[in-house]
Amino acid sequence: MSVTLEDIKAAAGRLKGLSRLTPVHTSRMVDERCGAKVFFKCENFQRAGAFKFRGAYNALCQLTPEQRKAGVLTYSSGNHAQAIALAGQLLEIPRVVVMPQDAPAVKLAATRGYGAEVVLYDKHKKTREELGAKLAAERGLTIIPPYNHRDIVAGQGTVALELHEQAGGLEVLLAPCGGGGLLSGSAVATCGMVPGCKVIGVEPATADDATRSFKSGELQTVKNPETVADGARTPSLGQLTFQLIRAHVDDMVTVDDAAIIETMRFIWERMKLVVEPTGALAYAALHSGVLSFPGKRVGVILSGGNVDLDSLPALFAHKPS
Amino acid sequence: MSVTLEDIKAAAGRLKGLSRLTPVHTSRMVDERCGAKVFFKCENFQRAGAFKFRGAYNALCQLTPEQRKAGVLTYSSGNHAQAIALAGQLLEIPRVVVMPQDAPAVKLAATRGYGAEVVLYDKHKKTREELGAKLAAERGLTIIPPYNHRDIVAGQGTVALELHEQAGGLEVLLAPCGGGGLLSGSAVATCGMVPGCKVIGVEPATADDATRSFKSGELQTVKNPETVADGARTPSLGQLTFQLIRAHVDDMVTVDDAAIIETMRFIWERMKLVVEPTGALAYAALHSGVLSFPGKRVGVILSGGNVDLDSLPALFAHKPS
Repeated sequence: MSVTLEDIKAAAGRLKGLSRLTPVHTSRMVDERCGAKVFFKCENFQRAGAFKFRGAYNALCQLTPEQRKAGVLTYSSGNHAQAIALAGQLLEIPRVVVMPQDAPAVKLAATRGYGAEVVLYDKHKKTREELGAKLAAERGLTIIPPYNHRDIVAGQGTVALELHEQAGGLEVLLAPCGGGGLLSGSAVATCGMVPGCKVIGVEPATADDATRSFKSGELQTVKNPETVADGARTPSLGQLTFQLIRAHVDDMVTVDDAAIIETMRFIWERMKLVVEPTGALAYAALHSGVLSFPGKRVGVILSGGNVDLDSLPALFAHKPS
Repeated sequence: MSVTLEDIKAAAGRLKGLSRLTPVHTSRMVDERCGAKVFFKCENFQRAGAFKFRGAYNALCQLTPEQRKAGVLTYSSGNHAQAIALAGQLLEIPRVVVMPQDAPAVKLAATRGYGAEVVLYDKHKKTREELGAKLAAERGLTIIPPYNHRDIVAGQGTVALELHEQAGGLEVLLAPCGGGGLLSGSAVATCGMVPGCKVIGVEPATADDATRSFKSGELQTVKNPETVADGARTPSLGQLTFQLIRAHVDDMVTVDDAAIIETMRFIWERMKLVVEPTGALAYAALHSGVLSFPGKRVGVILSGGNVDLDSLPALFAHKPS
């Protein structure tokens, strides 16, 4: 069980005309500050507001007619839920999304807005996996996990595939890391297309399980990490994403929440892009000086832009002085 | 004294490689909501964060060597100040910007950041025009006004020139209107390039001087209008911009502040673009239903993205329920 560049190219073919060919932005100010030439792949402009649509559609469109008819189930309080909801809408597949009772109202509304059935659960009483498995068994639904799945990884890899086509000759690629779908897919694409290009994953300091897994060679976990980067609060990599990251990623680094927030604010204020905290994560490593690549061509994935504007004052109150 | 399509084409030639060829964004959600095909010209991505760089550079680069050496002066607390500061930096022209004592710290910092000399004045004691004229006379500075100037108008007209090249066959073009530089320049470009395309200016309801001027045929003024769209708080059109608007604009409409804020929030949340209130003004007419063009191809200018993030909670508190 692995994922290859061919799988990613096949995913790109399936996504053609359905996912958005997101633009690559550059900034003189960023280049001067970093002493490098930086290319930002703007997945905040992807359909449903994040790269997740790519993997979700790539997985759903390969289901058998029987599976499509019965429907799918996923559990997520974040961008994967909306991505599955939208992809399933396009493919006319019934979909159930298991979300915590206390999920933000905007996320519930967005997921329902794409026509998904939302099933709420009390996270103090049972796990989403238990409830998901029970519902899936009762209704014959296919479970589509958020990252540890070949078709999901192949779909997410199309982000890097496009970026390398748009901004040739990259020497470094920085991607955020939660469950590792985007990072592993992007690393596979990069190794196949631009073998000399280094791939580095970036995690929040308080959710550093993937970094520890990468360095130790053993899958590590983290429990309910506190970080503003909600897309990176995953407890661990999956078996598949861990294996791919070990094989294809060159390094992993972490940045603290203050750096993530300061970077997010910079991207909003100076680049005029709405990115969510996890969307700012990869660039935070460069912006804060954790990483430095003088004179190099550096690709950075801005993974998504789904942020609740009402939460901004609290977020920015967090900003470093 | 007028401005022609040839002037705008000449400005585009001068700006080549210096101004940013800003992207045109589209949105399925917007198209469904409006029942039209809408093309957003994203001048929030322009250098210094707004279309103003175009006019400023086009004006400054045509000064004589003597004028360049002596320097320029402008008065603005907004985007024109930053645009002159940046354009002058690129052309190595000394520049003085007269700003009110109580201008937001971020705007002062941005203007100084581009190396301009900022002269503060107390707006309760004297007008900026008086102080500006005195300083200009003393130091031999050339005054570059923010809109009522042929080279400024021609520069701003390159926004529409580019948009028509990027999104062919537009049937309507919506532009925000403050002093009328962007609207008049865009109208001249449109009449010359796509004669059948209607041009409509959009103003805040409380700063409706241009709309009243357009309808009455006499130049009207407004005093210290209260509106969130700070770029449209100008007291009146200029003689030049009024003349061009009468000749080339098809209609003028107004939208209220609640609609501007709701539209701005929509653009941030759903289109992931940071726009300032004035930047959302043109689309607000369509978004709020003041205007409707079923089945048409509609161009909309998002004029800028310079907004103080710390002011957001207060802005959004203003939102309609």
